[in-house]
Amino acid sequence: MGAAIDPFRAIAISELAQRLKAQGRPVIHMEFGQPATGAPGEAITAAHQVLDSDPMSYWESSALRERIARHYREAYGVDPGPDRILLTAGASPALLLSLITAFNPGDTVALARPGYVAYRNTLKALHINPLEIACGAQTRFQLSAAQIEAMETPPAGVIIASPANPTGTIIPAGELARLCAVCAERSIRIISDEIYHGLSYGEPARSVLEFDDTAFIVNSFSKYYSMVGWRLGWLVAPQSLADSAKAYRGNLFLTPPSLSQHAALAAMDCRETLDGHVRTYSANRALMLEAAGRLGLDHFAPPDGAFYIWADIGHLTDDSMAFCERLLRETYVATAPGVDFDPVEGRHFMRFSFAASTDQVREAIARMEPWFAAQPRR
Amino acid sequence: MGAAIDPFRAIAISELAQRLKAQGRPVIHMEFGQPATGAPGEAITAAHQVLDSDPMSYWESSALRERIARHYREAYGVDPGPDRILLTAGASPALLLSLITAFNPGDTVALARPGYVAYRNTLKALHINPLEIACGAQTRFQLSAAQIEAMETPPAGVIIASPANPTGTIIPAGELARLCAVCAERSIRIISDEIYHGLSYGEPARSVLEFDDTAFIVNSFSKYYSMVGWRLGWLVAPQSLADSAKAYRGNLFLTPPSLSQHAALAAMDCRETLDGHVRTYSANRALMLEAAGRLGLDHFAPPDGAFYIWADIGHLTDDSMAFCERLLRETYVATAPGVDFDPVEGRHFMRFSFAASTDQVREAIARMEPWFAAQPRR
Repeated sequence: MGAAIDPFRAIAISELAQRLKAQGRPVIHMEFGQPATGAPGEAITAAHQVLDSDPMSYWESSALRERIARHYREAYGVDPGPDRILLTAGASPALLLSLITAFNPGDTVALARPGYVAYRNTLKALHINPLEIACGAQTRFQLSAAQIEAMETPPAGVIIASPANPTGTIIPAGELARLCAVCAERSIRIISDEIYHGLSYGEPARSVLEFDDTAFIVNSFSKYYSMVGWRLGWLVAPQSLADSAKAYRGNLFLTPPSLSQHAALAAMDCRETLDGHVRTYSANRALMLEAAGRLGLDHFAPPDGAFYIWADIGHLTDDSMAFCERLLRETYVATAPGVDFDPVEGRHFMRFSFAASTDQVREAIARMEPWFAAQPRR
Repeated sequence: MGAAIDPFRAIAISELAQRLKAQGRPVIHMEFGQPATGAPGEAITAAHQVLDSDPMSYWESSALRERIARHYREAYGVDPGPDRILLTAGASPALLLSLITAFNPGDTVALARPGYVAYRNTLKALHINPLEIACGAQTRFQLSAAQIEAMETPPAGVIIASPANPTGTIIPAGELARLCAVCAERSIRIISDEIYHGLSYGEPARSVLEFDDTAFIVNSFSKYYSMVGWRLGWLVAPQSLADSAKAYRGNLFLTPPSLSQHAALAAMDCRETLDGHVRTYSANRALMLEAAGRLGLDHFAPPDGAFYIWADIGHLTDDSMAFCERLLRETYVATAPGVDFDPVEGRHFMRFSFAASTDQVREAIARMEPWFAAQPRR
């Protein structure tokens, strides 16, 4: 059998939440990073039309690849062109595709700890060694150019995520440029997960593609575009590896869902609706930051983007899974235990997703305040 | 960079076909294994309803897993239960998931040559060694128990496909039982691709699960259920590896498309419509078999299932890619070159898919007859 990997603990929390909901409990979902909103109306309308007219065969939309290429020109001032863009059934297969295309078993890939659990586990599944580098509040939980420079043996690759999951922090442009320069100098291939782009509360996040044309860029329609269950993402491959990535994609996955591609093309022109969602997240973020003190959560980096708060709960527990489960059972607020994101420090961290509606976030805070206040300090 | 793999040549044929079509040429598609029909009406209706009511989050349908489990009880008299069934975005990720769960880099997995190109390439992508065993007309292009028994070193695994792509041949029940027994005896893990089940023209294909409860079974809604672009498949994992496969699935892919799961649940109760498609394929198959002699194609195994004819064109060419391209340019009939399915003998084979409408198949034959007659013999 293959490499041993850890399950997603948040899935267990979510399953418990669903059981409680089925029993009639007023569950609020803050355990997963998924918008409470659906796809924009124009995307739904496009989907209805296609359902009635298209038998839906194996298909990759040239129009959508062109539209994504235009997005890179408009948002970042770079022009990868449609031929380097590969559509996939979500960001997850795009990440897998980039790792399979770029690396071999036995290679080492560096990444920040804390980070998205699937980075570590997907690397392990491919027998690539994940080298997790502890990143604390001082670098806002992000890898720094200095850390990469200081590595005695350069890794084959590095995974960067800005905004990051679980912390929502963004790497500032200057630091990102330095990071890319160090990687170029040391021949380290960058995989940049930009799935939370479009969700920022100050300066927008910059794309690694602005600084390094040889990087792989992973993105998706699940977050900003609010199209989670449509399962559509994309990979921007470097020119030299684009044909190779396409050959892998054809063999490993074939094409992504047809209907989702039609709907996504419509969604890309719905910025007004989508920016409205971002304003909701911004309001939710403000509520959460304001409540944090009252919840006794003093140690966290206010998120620059995404829709997460990564909070140190070391004064309350050393078993975040049990803590989150108890919080759910007693207040019906579902959250994610830190162990999913940091196998070392995660036992005393938890992640709140504030992608729910503002009313739900307000209600969750109202329930959590007395509950947190009643918890004994360690 | 990762392992070098071959591109799908049929994709190049298909792209040329699409260019010709865009120029107004009357292209007939016989290059891919995809039904010309769409999803059953009830599935479309279900999709319309869900589009208007469900924000579509990360979701795996318990109802669909239960329904698939019931299908195994009804069709094969076996009961894997819903907990061993994992839903994926097509059969391709299900295959990948089974290989990652069951094997490690450096392992050897045996498979028949000719066979579906993605088996070989997906194994290579994972640095598992594909051991292709030449299977000729005498075993109807299928691996035999005797071949597995005769292997000096048993491989870690074997991939079986019945009905097979590109030949459509089915392994008879007795031989399949022997094959499973030999694999059990030699501790060889079976991956059984059953994507063409439901499409047979004599005895229905038997599931490997009837003979070996430790096998992985790959299947999909793309063929019998006529839902190609919906991208929905499933994996039946053995009990001992089900949790491991689920952990990989959660990390590598998350969940499959939500809408497709709703539609597929409706499609599973549309047997009348779907069996109507099979009657169409059966008529198409009869037309193709009848035409084969007139096309000068004397060497092929009449397919028991699927919707393919694998034909030896050695008397006409030793370059099947050029041959298929010329056929397309001169008759607008798109077909697949044998090199996709057999890197050794494929230069003098080609594959016809007869999943088009009967009128299209009839028209394709009418165009191909004079064209084949005009080709010089080698």
